Amino acid sequence: MTESIASEVRALTFDVFGTVVDWRSSVIREGQQLGDAKGLNIDWARFADEWRGGYAPAMDRVRQGELPWTRLDELHRMTLDRLLDDHGLADCLDETEKDHLNRVWHRLTPWPDSAEGLSKLKQRYVLATLSNGNVSLLVNMARHAGLPWDCVLSSELAGHYKRDPEVYQMAMRLLDLKPSQVMMVAAHQDDLQAAYRQGMRTAFIKRPLEHGPDATPDLSIDPRFDFVAEDITDLARQLL
Amino acid sequence: MTESIASEVRALTFDVFGTVVDWRSSVIREGQQLGDAKGLNIDWARFADEWRGGYAPAMDRVRQGELPWTRLDELHRMTLDRLLDDHGLADCLDETEKDHLNRVWHRLTPWPDSAEGLSKLKQRYVLATLSNGNVSLLVNMARHAGLPWDCVLSSELAGHYKRDPEVYQMAMRLLDLKPSQVMMVAAHQDDLQAAYRQGMRTAFIKRPLEHGPDATPDLSIDPRFDFVAEDITDLARQLL
Repeated sequence: MTESIASEVRALTFDVFGTVVDWRSSVIREGQQLGDAKGLNIDWARFADEWRGGYAPAMDRVRQGELPWTRLDELHRMTLDRLLDDHGLADCLDETEKDHLNRVWHRLTPWPDSAEGLSKLKQRYVLATLSNGNVSLLVNMARHAGLPWDCVLSSELAGHYKRDPEVYQMAMRLLDLKPSQVMMVAAHQDDLQAAYRQGMRTAFIKRPLEHGPDATPDLSIDPRFDFVAEDITDLARQLL
Repeated sequence: MTESIASEVRALTFDVFGTVVDWRSSVIREGQQLGDAKGLNIDWARFADEWRGGYAPAMDRVRQGELPWTRLDELHRMTLDRLLDDHGLADCLDETEKDHLNRVWHRLTPWPDSAEGLSKLKQRYVLATLSNGNVSLLVNMARHAGLPWDCVLSSELAGHYKRDPEVYQMAMRLLDLKPSQVMMVAAHQDDLQAAYRQGMRTAFIKRPLEHGPDATPDLSIDPRFDFVAEDITDLARQLL
């Protein structure tokens, strides 16, 4: 059964934040470097979690029409400005430094298996991002992290954020493939469930450390997922 | 002057048909193979030229609202069906063969310098397509021809065909760059002139053989172009 799925699928669409790159460690590391350079006393793990915590509420403001379509870079910046205020840091960084810090999301580090696993999968499948990151963010990240995408697809191209169905429909339309020929790959159950509702195939990647060593993410498996993998190289082993 | 332009530019956007790939030889070669296999007596050079000749009128039908937005794959197919009729071949090919022939545009061969030149340019610049080819066509072509794009941008994402200004504006918006940070690279003067009118930088690539050995293309240089190159490796020499 899984073999016939693997041979019908033509393209893999990847969630990126958390699934392909380790956003939390990357933000903490760059934050600590900045803090050391500027003599700031900040708990950067907490800062990273609060920054990421602003992500879903900010997208909801777009989804509910409270904001017009707004790129993730701008949503990140709105949250960053609020956090800098909350932490009493708004005056410690100039505009260039704030902009550079905001673009840490362009410089995230992949999980150790990502580049190798993607390179293997690329031999057989079209590889596309399908991320809420804006196109320029994803392009810069791919160059920085060595991620060999065939195609950068983004919520920006749909004018909708995941998990809105328009995002998955846009990917299938642009790739010119049927739902059963496209597999969504993600570490997040709700992303896969939304893809499933559009008829797409699904592969769940376990990323127990996405939210840090102390978090206890839900790694229970929805039986509707077509594949469950320990990481991206494991997915390549199962699909190739 | 050219040095300061080269250092301000961040991304190169490429026309593809004729500039990066040699559509004419590729269509002739595949046509001849098909003709030999099926025992068809066709002048494939003329067929290729007629097929390409249907391209601008078909896009004009979209531009003028006579057709709704229609992907290049579909425009190619409309022209192909007419040509097959004209040549008395409509009944010689079944639907699978026609579809395969139509997708020859996904399998075009690059000019000899393209892959090497792009790989060099990629070290310093973001490389994107900016083509009237649809996304899936460009993705399949890149995999087939080994073209190392960072990002596949297409008229399909703007819902307008070049040389409409919306296409160039879409590229700058998605790359999140100012006009002076993006350089259009093309073998066609009107494409570069349209990019110039949007404030973009321009590089002209000479492709004297695009329309075959007997054609006499206009290779006179518009003095507004920022760079003029013999081919893509030559452009890399000038920019790096």
